[in-house]
Amino acid sequence: KITKWMPKEESIDRLKMEDLLKRRFFYDQSFSIYGGVNGLYDYGPMGCAIKANVLAEWRRHFILEEQMLEVDCSMLTPEIVLKASGHVDRFADFMVKDVKTGECFRADHLIEAQLERLLKAKDINPEKKAEIERLLPQIDNMKGPDMQKVIEQYKMKSPVTNNDLSEPVAFNLMFATSIGPTGQLKGFLRPETAQGIFVNFKRLLEFNQGRLPFAAAQIGNSFRNEISPRSGLIRVREFTMAEIEHFVDPTDKSHPKFETVADLQIQLYSASNQMSGESAQVVRLGDAVKSKLINNETLGYFIGRIYQFMTKVGVDKRKLRFRQHMSNEMAHYACDCWDAECKTSYGWVECVGCADRSCYDLTQHMKFSGERLVAERPLPAPKKVQVNEVQAYANVIGKSFGKDTATITKHLQQLSHDDARALHDKLEQGDEKINIDGKEFAITRKMFTFRSTEKTVQVEEFVPSVIEPSFGIGRIMYAMWEHNFRIRPEDEQRTYFTLPPLITPYKCVVLPLSGNEEFKPYVKQISAILTQAGISHKIDTSSGTIGRRYSRSDEIAVPFAITIDFDTLKQPYSVTLRERDTFKQIRVKIDEIASILQGLSTGTVTWGELCTQYPEFVEQQTTKEQQ
Amino acid sequence: KITKWMPKEESIDRLKMEDLLKRRFFYDQSFSIYGGVNGLYDYGPMGCAIKANVLAEWRRHFILEEQMLEVDCSMLTPEIVLKASGHVDRFADFMVKDVKTGECFRADHLIEAQLERLLKAKDINPEKKAEIERLLPQIDNMKGPDMQKVIEQYKMKSPVTNNDLSEPVAFNLMFATSIGPTGQLKGFLRPETAQGIFVNFKRLLEFNQGRLPFAAAQIGNSFRNEISPRSGLIRVREFTMAEIEHFVDPTDKSHPKFETVADLQIQLYSASNQMSGESAQVVRLGDAVKSKLINNETLGYFIGRIYQFMTKVGVDKRKLRFRQHMSNEMAHYACDCWDAECKTSYGWVECVGCADRSCYDLTQHMKFSGERLVAERPLPAPKKVQVNEVQAYANVIGKSFGKDTATITKHLQQLSHDDARALHDKLEQGDEKINIDGKEFAITRKMFTFRSTEKTVQVEEFVPSVIEPSFGIGRIMYAMWEHNFRIRPEDEQRTYFTLPPLITPYKCVVLPLSGNEEFKPYVKQISAILTQAGISHKIDTSSGTIGRRYSRSDEIAVPFAITIDFDTLKQPYSVTLRERDTFKQIRVKIDEIASILQGLSTGTVTWGELCTQYPEFVEQQTTKEQQ
Repeated sequence: KITKWMPKEESIDRLKMEDLLKRRFFYDQSFSIYGGVNGLYDYGPMGCAIKANVLAEWRRHFILEEQMLEVDCSMLTPEIVLKASGHVDRFADFMVKDVKTGECFRADHLIEAQLERLLKAKDINPEKKAEIERLLPQIDNMKGPDMQKVIEQYKMKSPVTNNDLSEPVAFNLMFATSIGPTGQLKGFLRPETAQGIFVNFKRLLEFNQGRLPFAAAQIGNSFRNEISPRSGLIRVREFTMAEIEHFVDPTDKSHPKFETVADLQIQLYSASNQMSGESAQVVRLGDAVKSKLINNETLGYFIGRIYQFMTKVGVDKRKLRFRQHMSNEMAHYACDCWDAECKTSYGWVECVGCADRSCYDLTQHMKFSGERLVAERPLPAPKKVQVNEVQAYANVIGKSFGKDTATITKHLQQLSHDDARALHDKLEQGDEKINIDGKEFAITRKMFTFRSTEKTVQVEEFVPSVIEPSFGIGRIMYAMWEHNFRIRPEDEQRTYFTLPPLITPYKCVVLPLSGNEEFKPYVKQISAILTQAGISHKIDTSSGTIGRRYSRSDEIAVPFAITIDFDTLKQPYSVTLRERDTFKQIRVKIDEIASILQGLSTGTVTWGELCTQYPEFVEQQTTKEQQ
Repeated sequence: KITKWMPKEESIDRLKMEDLLKRRFFYDQSFSIYGGVNGLYDYGPMGCAIKANVLAEWRRHFILEEQMLEVDCSMLTPEIVLKASGHVDRFADFMVKDVKTGECFRADHLIEAQLERLLKAKDINPEKKAEIERLLPQIDNMKGPDMQKVIEQYKMKSPVTNNDLSEPVAFNLMFATSIGPTGQLKGFLRPETAQGIFVNFKRLLEFNQGRLPFAAAQIGNSFRNEISPRSGLIRVREFTMAEIEHFVDPTDKSHPKFETVADLQIQLYSASNQMSGESAQVVRLGDAVKSKLINNETLGYFIGRIYQFMTKVGVDKRKLRFRQHMSNEMAHYACDCWDAECKTSYGWVECVGCADRSCYDLTQHMKFSGERLVAERPLPAPKKVQVNEVQAYANVIGKSFGKDTATITKHLQQLSHDDARALHDKLEQGDEKINIDGKEFAITRKMFTFRSTEKTVQVEEFVPSVIEPSFGIGRIMYAMWEHNFRIRPEDEQRTYFTLPPLITPYKCVVLPLSGNEEFKPYVKQISAILTQAGISHKIDTSSGTIGRRYSRSDEIAVPFAITIDFDTLKQPYSVTLRERDTFKQIRVKIDEIASILQGLSTGTVTWGELCTQYPEFVEQQTTKEQQ
């Protein structure tokens, strides 16, 4: 969900940023030598490294910290699973077609864009304006006939050809395929990773030795056949998600670690803020849960953890808000749902969803699969319950019915308490005919017995609730890029990214001041030291000026540069360390380099702290002779 | 490719191992609450952690060490790309159907199995036996009609129902789908990750500043619609691959780091060994390249690096061989190809392919896309070449031909040297009619000029060769599991895995000797120390005996156990450290734990070395009173 709003003064030069992202191969359109495919993108070495770093941090921040159970499930999914989840019936957008060219448009996007254009017209009359403003917020929840009414009323045409449009039809967004050679098993590419966790619930609960709460997590690709993707990395047909399903007893959604996030001050954009046209409010998380604005502690805890994660990987906290779903956009079964939205040049973009889905998913899979997907809780006190047992005597049944024995035995065993008692009572009077799948069988009382006994139970079964934080990794990366894109005020050709060292592809670049032969062994030595310490780095021995080389490494967000100069050749062997955003340089000894960069990359030491400990360095001697 | 051969005495108890793998949720069949889907598997927390560790090591060993360019490309692939690669036309297996039930079988597997059964019959006559032995090695290369002959000759039936079989038909193994809402763009799920690298060749070469050789790498899922997958994790429909494409000048396939692997002694099973019925030979890699058994240094270097990787992650080097493709199984364009095969209970299984594919892939994509996928090499000396330039005058052409101007201009500019000269000469004689797409145009000599000039060039273009190591991660994991599965001689219920610490899901388990309250703060303290040091660990405070808890952690391959006992409570605070495979224990101080485990997990220190430095510990006091 993309909520449009972006004050002019905050907008970034998206074209310039995209040019940099493509030129240095962070990402680009897939298959472009064949003309490309809309909505499909490839990450190059830089994008790939950033993605790997974001996912590694996600694993540390969520999976390791909370001891979540990670799984890695199939993307190919048989139809029945997505029938159960509701995707086969309801995972669709409405589309309209250009009646002449056949080009398809997403109906809501088309209507919205055309109404917004009308709204901007200078000669619009006040009634019209009021009508459109009343219509706009309703589009998201419109079905086909309502959309058709708007299209007719405003005589909307294809934005490309101005041809007429077809009526809106629902288009299922899943990619269909056929599994196996017979063509009989219909399958889809999963539209989300969550279902893989739900269908494994029993194994996971057992892995966790039957205890609740626990969380499972999965990182992997999902697929949505978007009708006409046109928003770069924001709306794509194949994308990496990271999802958590936290299973919890619905009667107790408290969280033992909630206090660790209670003091966070977070921008919350509540349903009531949205209804009354107010803007988002900065609220202390503990207060939001206490006042029941956020439904429960566990949901609140995850909102806090999501906030911490997002800001750690480089999202600007001023451009991050949590927007509560309005009651009409929330699924009927959900208790509460908050989207982490990032402000970008495309408007506010949903990057993480965080929903309390109650027991919907497990209940659905229980219904469709017949498996009991439940957990147990101890009863406050042992309880006596009636247990009905039907004992069917297959040897007696077999004598009368031969090959139908199994069918009849199964039927009898599955009778409900009342039906079993009724049948038992009737048989006391004489034989009785029962009907199974249209066939009649005359049952005698020797064929089964019925017993109702009292048992004491210590536990009761229940279907767990699930709280689901769901991350769109590509959207988060895009927001990180926009929030960290900068142009040097002194030279608008020099663009760079202020990404945190935790996330950058390289932690540093090693540069000899010039092509001087004496520098070469030091480049090798320092590179070996960094490799040994596991610090990813780049070596730039190309012939450009040092300034140009700094600039090239700034473009790919390298936070620190190690420069080997003529002072390096003298004892104590030292190098300069330059920081990307401030241009500041300090002088450090070669044998300190590894530990300093390790500290900077993992965040155990900051650049500011280092600057107080090491001498600032102002300018290199550019030739040996100056010494 | 699975080559069957497994001496009886080496076979492992596969059922017992699979029981353990499923019980502790390393992996299991996908969607099993819905009856499961053949060839699809989910990794649970243990399998997922092992997979993540194998991939992390793969990244370190290959990508970081060689500064490879990692990419992450779309799985959805439009048809044209796989037309170019040859997959649409040739990526197929032959299948036969049970004519009554419609059940499908892979024809070669069915024929092979039935012939092998006949071979084992006691009453087989010598001629029959010779005939079958002659047939068996040919099956791999048979097409449909040849297979049909064998099926008829031996009157083969469905192994399930004994019904007749249909004729073998080619079945393409790619999953087809449709991209976008119009249904007009046919696509497939990629059958390998390699194509994503080839279609990005230009961007990658540019990223590498135009220099060769360089390697690109990709880790990701691929999909193959196997006809009837029945070999567990060995033959699956969705799987993770890790592929490298090393682009190199075909005139120079030397490798600067070959010497670092030249002394490795590796089992090589050459094509000539196979032809003459010999077994694999242990050969020094340097000698194999020198003697030209392995085609070139770069191919040899990768064979060495693959060997190092496989043995590092836990493959038994005695059960690892490199098998050379026979000339009839190798693609016509390939120079040489070696498969790393692991011996398992399914026979010798191909886990890594390592092929010199020459310039086939780039040439194909160049042909289908029209893009020039080439690199440049400096010429030994500058060379003079003839350059033809056609200058078409659109303003003159426009006056005569109006809207056809662009067509004619383009046609003239694209004329070959000879055609341009011929047309130019003819026009010297008078006007001339040319035919473009069936339409005639009368050209005058004012409409274009032709010039042939001499230019000096410093470089020449060429299509790079590609050497492709391609890893099947699931198969490697399966081989690791089989090679490391053990049963304790003293108790056959106690099974465990001897996986190297680098790969195990947890590096250690923290166990209090009993439920004694005094142990609890130490469990917390040690867990905090380990978390701080980034060492993944498990805490087991369950109530079983210490032996039973060790046994449970051995099952999931935890290599070390830290036990908190009554001695822990006394200064100097210490714990026991137990090793999984030997049961040996040593006593170490709590503040040494983090650095010791870090060393053990990364391999900078071995257990054997530690045992010489720390006192061996024989038995815990099991109650406080014994002190």
